[in-house]
Amino acid sequence: MMIFLVQVKVMPLKELLDPQGKAVLGGLQNLGLDKIRDVRIGKHISLDVEADSADQAKKIAEEAGKKLLANPVMEYFEISVN
Amino acid sequence: MMIFLVQVKVMPLKELLDPQGKAVLGGLQNLGLDKIRDVRIGKHISLDVEADSADQAKKIAEEAGKKLLANPVMEYFEISVN
Repeated sequence: MMIFLVQVKVMPLKELLDPQGKAVLGGLQNLGLDKIRDVRIGKHISLDVEADSADQAKKIAEEAGKKLLANPVMEYFEISVN
Repeated sequence: MMIFLVQVKVMPLKELLDPQGKAVLGGLQNLGLDKIRDVRIGKHISLDVEADSADQAKKIAEEAGKKLLANPVMEYFEISVN
């Protein structure tokens, strides 16, 4: 068994508005950062997963994503294993 | 000018507790996902940045990270340009 560091990115679905992102975009423009055209904000979740292989660690993280980390009505998630 | 998609990962500093991560870890264990040993939760922020080069887009995102996206007392951030 090894410990794999798995990164899960949980973002608002592309077809949904992201009011938090829009608020931050406004804040950045007020600070003069007017080259930033859009902002979307989600969660970044790092997992330490005990597994025999990177593939197995990814499967465990996928199960976590489906069962708890992401709300599929509003969010999608992507997984990468380091 | 091109639009670069810049990813900013904002995480709680490693030396700080992450109570939200600990709560999610407990939830995962209650769901039977007992191979997950640790969870840390931060933000994932996607920026559309208008710039002449990937380097320039990264610099703009760094300025956004320092000025608004991350609180250096509690968080660090990492940037990648796609």
